[in-house]
Amino acid sequence: MRFGVNHTPSVGWFHSWLDFSPSDTARDMEQIASLGADHVRVFPLWPVVQPNRTLIRRAALDDVATVVDIAGSFGLDVNVDALQGHLSSFDFVPSWLDSWHRRNMFTDPEVVASTAAYVEALAAAVADKPNLLGISIGNEVNQFAHAPHPAPHDTTAEQGHAWAAAMVAAARRGLTGARDTSGREARRGSAPLVTVAQYDAAWYDDAQPFGPEHAADHGDATVTHSWVFNGAAALHGALGAGSVRHGEYLLQLAAAWNRAPGRPNWLQEVGAPTNVVDPADAAAFTDRTIRHVAGAQDLLGVTWWCSHDVARSLADFPELEYDLGLFTNDGRLKPAGEAFAALARSRMPTPAAPPSIAVVLDDVLPDGSPRYGVRADCAPGGRFAAAWLACAESSADGRGPQVVLRSRLSDTAHTVARGIRSTVEVPDDLAGTALSVAHPATMP
Amino acid sequence: MRFGVNHTPSVGWFHSWLDFSPSDTARDMEQIASLGADHVRVFPLWPVVQPNRTLIRRAALDDVATVVDIAGSFGLDVNVDALQGHLSSFDFVPSWLDSWHRRNMFTDPEVVASTAAYVEALAAAVADKPNLLGISIGNEVNQFAHAPHPAPHDTTAEQGHAWAAAMVAAARRGLTGARDTSGREARRGSAPLVTVAQYDAAWYDDAQPFGPEHAADHGDATVTHSWVFNGAAALHGALGAGSVRHGEYLLQLAAAWNRAPGRPNWLQEVGAPTNVVDPADAAAFTDRTIRHVAGAQDLLGVTWWCSHDVARSLADFPELEYDLGLFTNDGRLKPAGEAFAALARSRMPTPAAPPSIAVVLDDVLPDGSPRYGVRADCAPGGRFAAAWLACAESSADGRGPQVVLRSRLSDTAHTVARGIRSTVEVPDDLAGTALSVAHPATMP
Repeated sequence: MRFGVNHTPSVGWFHSWLDFSPSDTARDMEQIASLGADHVRVFPLWPVVQPNRTLIRRAALDDVATVVDIAGSFGLDVNVDALQGHLSSFDFVPSWLDSWHRRNMFTDPEVVASTAAYVEALAAAVADKPNLLGISIGNEVNQFAHAPHPAPHDTTAEQGHAWAAAMVAAARRGLTGARDTSGREARRGSAPLVTVAQYDAAWYDDAQPFGPEHAADHGDATVTHSWVFNGAAALHGALGAGSVRHGEYLLQLAAAWNRAPGRPNWLQEVGAPTNVVDPADAAAFTDRTIRHVAGAQDLLGVTWWCSHDVARSLADFPELEYDLGLFTNDGRLKPAGEAFAALARSRMPTPAAPPSIAVVLDDVLPDGSPRYGVRADCAPGGRFAAAWLACAESSADGRGPQVVLRSRLSDTAHTVARGIRSTVEVPDDLAGTALSVAHPATMP
Repeated sequence: MRFGVNHTPSVGWFHSWLDFSPSDTARDMEQIASLGADHVRVFPLWPVVQPNRTLIRRAALDDVATVVDIAGSFGLDVNVDALQGHLSSFDFVPSWLDSWHRRNMFTDPEVVASTAAYVEALAAAVADKPNLLGISIGNEVNQFAHAPHPAPHDTTAEQGHAWAAAMVAAARRGLTGARDTSGREARRGSAPLVTVAQYDAAWYDDAQPFGPEHAADHGDATVTHSWVFNGAAALHGALGAGSVRHGEYLLQLAAAWNRAPGRPNWLQEVGAPTNVVDPADAAAFTDRTIRHVAGAQDLLGVTWWCSHDVARSLADFPELEYDLGLFTNDGRLKPAGEAFAALARSRMPTPAAPPSIAVVLDDVLPDGSPRYGVRADCAPGGRFAAAWLACAESSADGRGPQVVLRSRLSDTAHTVARGIRSTVEVPDDLAGTALSVAHPATMP
């Protein structure tokens, strides 16, 4: 299990790319490394790197490469996200996608080709770094398929697949091409991962064109972002099981959609937002969240959001965004940071076997056709979410159950490969009843 | 009469602020100075200088100040525009005005205060430069009061006045404060001008909240931007009188709205767009446009758009934008540049007296109330525009007439101060008839 931190630069937030300072970066990385973290995730701003559709700035790519080197000097691997895109309520969309130039960023052929060129160039710029953990296509880019974000909102799921496939292919070209020419293969760990990062509408909102399949079918790992301001904390309380198990739950939900058993699952973002988690509870929230996450099978790791509080001198962030750091803006370790560090340093053992029970998710109708509404069932407070949570809370070892899709239930090779020994059906009517897991169906 | 050029950086267009190069800037400025120009207009990108509402980047201000110094080293004065904003079809709007943060940039108190802080800081950064010609609030900021630009489009004329007044006051604070503290007053010419630059919907579109009064009532000079792709060239041909007199006409129209006779009028942008002006006609268009402009009274000068063609390696510009330079992108002087240079070097004499005839513009109804539709009448092809043009073409000395508002016609002090000796009424029905100026009313 890997422990990482999303790097929010302490000086100038992500606007610091405009005034890139290696020494500021080094100070942040040193603090992050002091937590016992093994990796960071970093976020270039798209319009800064690619201000014109056909202008990818060499200096900006060099700055990203320098950040990877600096992180490496503190023993940190680095995941680089390409398309930001969206960060902490702010959109960074190049002017060539705005007003007169507004086009669907997921479907317009020129835009997709040029976006892919950026992803490829960014990947190539860091491909030879031995501490490169991977490339994410961008941070929650599926936000741009919904209002209030500016891209036209008529993208279909199929178009989303074509886009994600094009971006992943571009990242792979960048990684491979550069390795081939540099001849360097002195990578610290395994080959860099390519991933597609989505916000949780992919799992919870049936109207979002990017869904579970987009997370599970593209790239080398399935990425989840857990934010309990999505209703989980309102429903369950900040330290309620539905909140501190939300990251674990998303990992299990993600695993259900993976076509390949054993595909890694990565909780790439999770944090303790103060609008629903009292700062006094942040450390407990952090500790319990990570302990639950550690019970999931095929876990790549957890990457906490975020390293540093946003400076109060910067305006207009939603209040909660100022207080998500493991460090204060001036570098003091916060209680949540202490909790994170204690676990990161403990080299937590991960269970040898996956949870043997799986809750069945009705992804299809009885006739086998896809069921609209499955994602709403999975959202906090939804029927499926309630069933999974009840099952998790009644488990003997404290680990939440796996999830298996109805459409794959009869695929014995699939269930066996995942170590699923028994299944739990969601009762037809959960209203007012606690879910019982007393009668798991026994798998063949 | 001053001759200037709008500086479009030859390397990286305005994205070059992200990779600021003093030597690239110096080469451009040297070429501009070689034309005989006495000033340039330069355009920082707003989101680059003020990426967060409360973060105004010192390094970006320093870069602007350096550009002013470099231009000065080639004998060029500099006008600095603040809010870009809009340039050549591209919008550059900070992320703190987009999607979740979308607010009316002209009326939201926090946004207006922070925008003013930027204008003030920019003015202060260059206030002590002896070659500072002035500060424009921004390039055609009134575009953002209309679709497809993202600001909410519910701004009223009164709100527009409040905004313009706030921005002009901010620029003056920046200019004055910095002068006071530096103690330097070694200015080459007169005190720097503060101006409000608008695109021609201010003069021609009654639905545009920013109108003639916003141009004429704020700042130290009335600014006009002349682009014959607005219908003038389609109607009159590239070298027709209605095209090569369009800049002159706008100057006269502007002068009519000035409350203070003698207020300077500045044709701050005019160019030969290839979508309506054949490149073979560009030199003639340039020569004739400037000669006509020189006949206007109270003329500050003309600032040609632009210095350098946009590089073909940059994508998505409207076709005409690639070919507006007086120089090619790689620095070769174009025929239009030769025409401009010949006039700039000739130190054209400007007439001692203003045109003595004025065409009466019906800005009010017979009862004295404002008349909606006056701007449409002024647009190319409109009744008033046709009347002015006919009068101009029949004038003995070739100079177009002045314009006087109906509402000011009885203000003898006004008309005398402007040197208006006789007036021409627009015939009630111009349809199919050439306008006669045979019967000018004699002024008292």
